[in-house]
Amino acid sequence: MTIKLDFSKFDGLLPVVTQDFSSNEVLMVAFMNEDAWEMTLASGKATYFSRSRKKLWVKGGTSGHEQIVKEIRIDCDNDTVLLKVVQKGDAACHEGYRSCFYRKVENGKAEIVETPVFDPREVYKK
Amino acid sequence: MTIKLDFSKFDGLLPVVTQDFSSNEVLMVAFMNEDAWEMTLASGKATYFSRSRKKLWVKGGTSGHEQIVKEIRIDCDNDTVLLKVVQKGDAACHEGYRSCFYRKVENGKAEIVETPVFDPREVYKK
Repeated sequence: MTIKLDFSKFDGLLPVVTQDFSSNEVLMVAFMNEDAWEMTLASGKATYFSRSRKKLWVKGGTSGHEQIVKEIRIDCDNDTVLLKVVQKGDAACHEGYRSCFYRKVENGKAEIVETPVFDPREVYKK
Repeated sequence: MTIKLDFSKFDGLLPVVTQDFSSNEVLMVAFMNEDAWEMTLASGKATYFSRSRKKLWVKGGTSGHEQIVKEIRIDCDNDTVLLKVVQKGDAACHEGYRSCFYRKVENGKAEIVETPVFDPREVYKK
């Protein structure tokens, strides 16, 4: 079947879950507009739309931590994308962790349960 | 650290990724408002906010396919939740598949790559 994604629900954006291709670890969640979706398909590199900067965002453009897309899934409602990627530099999170989900909620508190892979001050030099 | 989730970015909603606790398979993506978050914490069962029905939605309320929350992660921006769950009835998707992401995108087309676990006509009797 041909693909018709539904970008209408959040002003032209839809959520994207990015998962490690081998381990299935969820690395991050971000958003795509239609241009980001087309660029991801064409380039094979995860490209998002930054809600804060309001522009296309090729993941790894600054850090070098690109995401090579190995598989793409879409959900039953055509309004969410799942990318399975190889994460360059071993880390997706701008805080230096492999996954953005490095904090676990327990007893009403959030505890860091992962170890950073890189030092953000080294990677994102001002 | 205490938890302060940011519900401001999408009119009081934030995206939630729900993953199988054992296999790390992504079962679905949905949204929570603050009430859904609090109910999930209090009940230990995944509770979302339905964007289409505009109300709280205890997953499995109709189908019996509840999600027992085993672990909760939050992301670096405090605006996304990751639930690791045990999926009752072995299927999260209302179409009868284990995961809502049962279609793979390849060569510009979406192909079904999973097998249904249940018949939606049997589970969601009108």
